[in-house]
Amino acid sequence: MTDIETRIRDSFARQSMMQTLGAEIDEVSEGKVVITAPILPSSRQQHDVAHAALSFAIGDTAAGYAALTKMPDDQEVMTAEIKINLLAPGAGDYLRATGRVIKPGRRLVVVTAEVHAITESSEKLIAILQGTMVPVAKQG
Amino acid sequence: MTDIETRIRDSFARQSMMQTLGAEIDEVSEGKVVITAPILPSSRQQHDVAHAALSFAIGDTAAGYAALTKMPDDQEVMTAEIKINLLAPGAGDYLRATGRVIKPGRRLVVVTAEVHAITESSEKLIAILQGTMVPVAKQG
Amino acid sequence: MTDIETRIRDSFARQSMMQTLGAEIDEVSEGKVVITAPILPSSRQQHDVAHAALSFAIGDTAAGYAALTKMPDDQEVMTAEIKINLLAPGAGDYLRATGRVIKPGRRLVVVTAEVHAITESSEKLIAILQGTMVPVAKQG
Amino acid sequence: MTDIETRIRDSFARQSMMQTLGAEIDEVSEGKVVITAPILPSSRQQHDVAHAALSFAIGDTAAGYAALTKMPDDQEVMTAEIKINLLAPGAGDYLRATGRVIKPGRRLVVVTAEVHAITESSEKLIAILQGTMVPVAKQG
Repeated sequence: MTDIETRIRDSFARQSMMQTLGAEIDEVSEGKVVITAPILPSSRQQHDVAHAALSFAIGDTAAGYAALTKMPDDQEVMTAEIKINLLAPGAGDYLRATGRVIKPGRRLVVVTAEVHAITESSEKLIAILQGTMVPVAKQG
Repeated sequence: MTDIETRIRDSFARQSMMQTLGAEIDEVSEGKVVITAPILPSSRQQHDVAHAALSFAIGDTAAGYAALTKMPDDQEVMTAEIKINLLAPGAGDYLRATGRVIKPGRRLVVVTAEVHAITESSEKLIAILQGTMVPVAKQG
Repeated sequence: MTDIETRIRDSFARQSMMQTLGAEIDEVSEGKVVITAPILPSSRQQHDVAHAALSFAIGDTAAGYAALTKMPDDQEVMTAEIKINLLAPGAGDYLRATGRVIKPGRRLVVVTAEVHAITESSEKLIAILQGTMVPVAKQG
Repeated sequence: MTDIETRIRDSFARQSMMQTLGAEIDEVSEGKVVITAPILPSSRQQHDVAHAALSFAIGDTAAGYAALTKMPDDQEVMTAEIKINLLAPGAGDYLRATGRVIKPGRRLVVVTAEVHAITESSEKLIAILQGTMVPVAKQG
């Protein structure tokens, strides 16, 4: 595992929200991070499909860690802002969020993410995100 | 309780994600809905404050139900898109999201939400959201 | 005129796009800037009302200068990102954009703007914006 | 020229703002429209590079017409909302906006656009947009 992947997996493991949602890191490469999550019985909206907050949570987190792959070791990442367009209901076996860096920078990193709903035979784009991550000095 | 408040509380009770996050409806009035949520040990990010997805979840839901107060009885609401700007860490006793309708419409309802972090002695604005809700025919 | 108003009016005068659109600064106060613009024959879309880019241009500029009122003298402001929701057609005698600071900061300033279409007897909210401004060292 | 290209060019020709900015349609294909614009002396901000409103204007318009390529003949398109992240100053010989449909729909069309600054020897991504277009019945 590369150093950056270790850093990201350590940080991810400290995010209790990610455990609550059953999310896992699937891939870490430079400028790209993939996170998957099941559509747990506890993560749904009133029509029994994935809550928009699940797509947001893994999309935002994948985009944030994608940004972190472009930052120095002594930095962490925070979301300044992010927008999500929801394209289709979150129905399927699980969701997969792919975060990517569009423009790295010392002060701001512009990112996007795509969220797909996956079944054995299909994958459907259900949300797209576009946002801004900011580096912050690592704490503690 | 008004009819619309009953409808919103029924719908909210069917959203398992809201229970997972410990969220509750605090107020329903025409064009405005307030939702609160504790910062559960299971809703945090790596620095032990509220995960951005918690602010998103209750902000989006408060804004969506605010939109529903302006729709006919046979309609439900879906988020088309929403953007969140995060202003400060989610630290405090609990979070409170206030959703409001800016522009009702037959096809689109434009909404905003503010999320505050609350302690006994203070309340701090930690996120603002701006989005679009769409009416959909009620299912089932 | 206060120093900050002088700085803003000087900067505004160097923006040729603002002259092209006939825009004028109407008010500068701490954390708030108001800009107006006629709906020129040259600023329209295919139905002869104001082009969305006119609302964007004055909304973004009002929000940016509102941010500048909160920054040190040796700084300038740039838009990192901004989102516009369009609520109604831009029809009227002129447009008025009111930019406000929601959260000042050393590295990021979160802003909003409202754009109204004005006639002798009415004013109608036609667009809302929410965005992020960043301070940059003054050039030249 | 295809019917849809004729419709788009006719509509574009009625947008006086596009003439004011010197914008031209470069390409129309299904789900994709490309618009270019010079950085006119009259389209600049205070540092003499392209005003953000120029990137917005051509990005929004390219995305809107891309959406129109997916709509029935008796419909027109309006921007419901769009967000722009600005990545770099608008310096170069001209700007080129490429609008694309991400998700067509009867009620909403989700779109993106990329804006590049072009010189003889380079092209640089300077802005990305993500938004929602809505079909409306054709007027007149």
